[in-house]
Amino acid sequence: MASRGFQVEQHPFGPAVGRLVEQFAALPGIGRKSAERLANHILSCSTPEAMALATAIHEVKKTIRRCSVCFNLTEQELCVLCRDPRRDRTVVCVVEQPKDVSALEAAAAFQGTYHVLGGRIAPLEGVGPEDLTIGPLVQRVKRDHVKELIMATNPTLEGDGTALFISNLLEEQQVEITRLARGIATGSVLEFANKEMLADAMRGRQHF
Amino acid sequence: MASRGFQVEQHPFGPAVGRLVEQFAALPGIGRKSAERLANHILSCSTPEAMALATAIHEVKKTIRRCSVCFNLTEQELCVLCRDPRRDRTVVCVVEQPKDVSALEAAAAFQGTYHVLGGRIAPLEGVGPEDLTIGPLVQRVKRDHVKELIMATNPTLEGDGTALFISNLLEEQQVEITRLARGIATGSVLEFANKEMLADAMRGRQHF
Repeated sequence: MASRGFQVEQHPFGPAVGRLVEQFAALPGIGRKSAERLANHILSCSTPEAMALATAIHEVKKTIRRCSVCFNLTEQELCVLCRDPRRDRTVVCVVEQPKDVSALEAAAAFQGTYHVLGGRIAPLEGVGPEDLTIGPLVQRVKRDHVKELIMATNPTLEGDGTALFISNLLEEQQVEITRLARGIATGSVLEFANKEMLADAMRGRQHF
Repeated sequence: MASRGFQVEQHPFGPAVGRLVEQFAALPGIGRKSAERLANHILSCSTPEAMALATAIHEVKKTIRRCSVCFNLTEQELCVLCRDPRRDRTVVCVVEQPKDVSALEAAAAFQGTYHVLGGRIAPLEGVGPEDLTIGPLVQRVKRDHVKELIMATNPTLEGDGTALFISNLLEEQQVEITRLARGIATGSVLEFANKEMLADAMRGRQHF
């Protein structure tokens, strides 16, 4: 089948469908052909079914905000995790973005709470510590008597730098600072691991 | 990364995001992980950008209807193609679905008009000729003095059967009935062609 590259106004079903294809194609990982297929799905499904997606988008943009404690995304003052009485408030996992919270939650290997920085310190992009939620994190460590801070920033130069900056800031506090184990990615093959991964894995080797 | 399988109410960003992920995952070809990624995109992009998709869905479901001549999808009484004065009304290509119109239009190899049947005759599914737009097609052939009807139903048993049914109906009309050439798919390899494709290709062989 030929690839579909209709101009919005030239779409054989009219410009409204052309605009819909355009909007789908603007989503990450959706090409023109998938966008056309998604638009065909919207055209062929019932109006309530199609409107459920439109409404879900609308609802999310209307209701979503930042948790006042951990800056995770939420619809209420506190996020689902900060509201949960079973979560340990004295163990805080520090991540860059809300999507890192959902990645870690999916792994279901952590029972503490989170702190979302909103990015990492990146001088070249003009992102300094004051652009992140580092101030509230320091306050939170003091106020909630946090015992352990687990640094789960991305394993990049900037992510590591941000973790280091925070741990320096908290040097005088009674808080243990750890970071996620790193090394060979579980499920990967040694052959494709790069130098840094292998060096980290060697340095952090554990008893069998 | 672990696969994400949050219940709607358990999503770490709250139920509104859970519902959005659910809606994206209901689209064809979108798995849970892609749905989560699309929801993250909606969360991180600006409200006007996100609302453009919601609005496009809304607009399409509100405005789209069937062309009164060819039953293609359109926002107006007549579709873009039936309104185009350069299109030949005496050559009509008969297809099953509107998406077949956009596939053929993308190939840009046809200057006539279309007729969308709305499906194919499928007795086992209870779809008879009266459920399709065959009646209006017969009227159209007579009224517009159609010279050629190109059958472009799908090359399946039911698609072929539908084409045969229509050509029998129009036996007494002064209309030439043709069908799309079939055989080896252009760009494919002989090795993977099935028996029916090879037999069709052999039967319809052309001078080099």
